[in-house]
Amino acid sequence: MFHANAKILVAVSGGKDSLVLWSSLLELGYDASGIFINLGIEPNSRTAQKKVKKFAEQNNAVLHIVDIQDYLGATIPEVNKIVKKPICSVCGMVRRYILNSEAKRLGYSVLATGHNLDDEAATLLGNTLHWYEGYLKRQYPTLEEEQGFVRKVKPLVLCSEKETLAYAVIRQIDFDSERCPFSRGATSQFYKHILNLIEHDMPGTKQNFLCEFFRKMSGNIYNSCEKDKLTPCEICGYPTSAGRKCSFCRLKEQIGSETYMSLLEKVV
Amino acid sequence: MFHANAKILVAVSGGKDSLVLWSSLLELGYDASGIFINLGIEPNSRTAQKKVKKFAEQNNAVLHIVDIQDYLGATIPEVNKIVKKPICSVCGMVRRYILNSEAKRLGYSVLATGHNLDDEAATLLGNTLHWYEGYLKRQYPTLEEEQGFVRKVKPLVLCSEKETLAYAVIRQIDFDSERCPFSRGATSQFYKHILNLIEHDMPGTKQNFLCEFFRKMSGNIYNSCEKDKLTPCEICGYPTSAGRKCSFCRLKEQIGSETYMSLLEKVV
Repeated sequence: MFHANAKILVAVSGGKDSLVLWSSLLELGYDASGIFINLGIEPNSRTAQKKVKKFAEQNNAVLHIVDIQDYLGATIPEVNKIVKKPICSVCGMVRRYILNSEAKRLGYSVLATGHNLDDEAATLLGNTLHWYEGYLKRQYPTLEEEQGFVRKVKPLVLCSEKETLAYAVIRQIDFDSERCPFSRGATSQFYKHILNLIEHDMPGTKQNFLCEFFRKMSGNIYNSCEKDKLTPCEICGYPTSAGRKCSFCRLKEQIGSETYMSLLEKVV
Repeated sequence: MFHANAKILVAVSGGKDSLVLWSSLLELGYDASGIFINLGIEPNSRTAQKKVKKFAEQNNAVLHIVDIQDYLGATIPEVNKIVKKPICSVCGMVRRYILNSEAKRLGYSVLATGHNLDDEAATLLGNTLHWYEGYLKRQYPTLEEEQGFVRKVKPLVLCSEKETLAYAVIRQIDFDSERCPFSRGATSQFYKHILNLIEHDMPGTKQNFLCEFFRKMSGNIYNSCEKDKLTPCEICGYPTSAGRKCSFCRLKEQIGSETYMSLLEKVV
C-alpha cells in the first residue's frame, strides 16, 4: 500500500476506525499526519474535533483541520436543506473532494482512510445488488495516483468492526462513538444489517464475499469496463466525468445562488 | 430462446412453475412435451406424478416419466443416507444428468425449465456472495448446445413466484404445492428469505439485481473466465470436468458398492 518512508495523510473523523488506523500507523513508525473535516453537524462535529485534537496532541502528530464552510460556503445541515439528493452521498462527494485537494495541496503521497471490513462489504453488497460497474471497478483497497487523484489506500479493509472496536478499547483510544444524525435510514446501514443476518447463519461469508471479490473479480471488472473519461473541471481543475464543471463546483454554485435567493427574500 | 417449430422438452416437477411453463407453451402453440423424474421421495413423488399425468392427459400432451431407480439404482432418500454432501446439490446434479441424457436420447432440441425470478435471483445471490465464477458464467437464461449438452432455456426467468402462482390459480392448474421435505434449511431458501427482506425495503431490487447481471456482467464474466475443459466420461460419455468419470457415474458406483456392502452385512 505504501513504502516505509511514504508521507501519509490519514482522514480522521473522530470515530474508532480512523483513530485506530492513525494510532497503528504512528506506532509502526510511519510518517502519518491527520486531516479532520469539520462538517458543521452540531454538536457532533465539535465533539469529534476535540477528540481528534486531543489524540494528535497526545501523540505529537501533525493534524490539519478543514472547515467545510471555508471550502463550500455551507455546513452539511445547510446543504441538506438545499439539495434534493441523499445527503450521505453528497457529503461523501464533498469529503472526497476536500481530502484529495488537501492531500495534493499539502504534498502528501498517500491518502489513507479507516474503512473496515464491514464498511467495504456493505458497499460491495450495494454495488453488486445494482451491478454498478463504475463503482465496482474502483472498489479496491489501493487506488493508484492518476489524472489528478492522489493515491488512496484502505489499510483496515480486512479488519472487522468488532476488531477495530476491540483495538480502540484495549489501547484506550478516546474516540467519538456518536452516530451521524443523518445516517439513520442510510442504505449503508441497511446493507450492514443484511450482511450481519447472513453472517449469523453462515459465519465467514462477509470476509469471503469481500476477499474473493478482490481476488477474482475486481481485476476482470476493471479490465472489461470502459475507462472513465476524466477532464479537469473548468473552475477548479479537479478531474471530473460529470461534464465541464465537477460535482463539487456545481454544488457550490447551487449553494451560492440559494443563499443569494434567501438573502433577497429577507430583504424584499 | 427457441424457434416456433422447436421440439421442446419441459422438465416438470408437478410444482406451479414447471406446469405454468408447460401450460403456456402449449397454449402458445409450441411443440412441448413434458418429462417427469420420479425421485422416490414418498409420498411427494407419487402425488406429483399423478398431477403431472393428469395435466398431460387433459392437455393431450406427450409426457415421459423416468424413475430415478432405473437410472441410478437408488431413490433420493436412499442417496441421502449414503452420500455426505448436501442432498439438494446431489439431487440437482442427478436431475441435470437425467434431463440432459433423456432430451438427447429422445431427440429434443431444447430443454426448458420453470426457474422463476425468485429462484434465479436467490441462486445469483449465493453465487455472488462466494464469487463462484464457474457458476456465474453459466447463469444465463439461455445456454447454447455444446459439447454433449443440449440447449437449455429458462423462459420464466423474469416472472416472479407470485406471478407464476397467480397464473396457476387463474388458469386452474392443479399443481403440487408440497415442499420437498429435504428443502428445509436449504441455502436457496435462506437466500430467498434474504432477498425478500431487501425487496421489502427496496422494491424492485430483486428484478434489477438479476436483469442488470444478465445485461452488464454475465458476458464479461463468461469472457474473462477460463473455458471448462470438458472430456467425455469414460463410462457413459457425458461431458465432465470432474476427471475420467462424471459425477453421476461416480455416485452410481458409490451406491452400487454401498448396496453390496449392506447386502453382505445382512448375509454375514
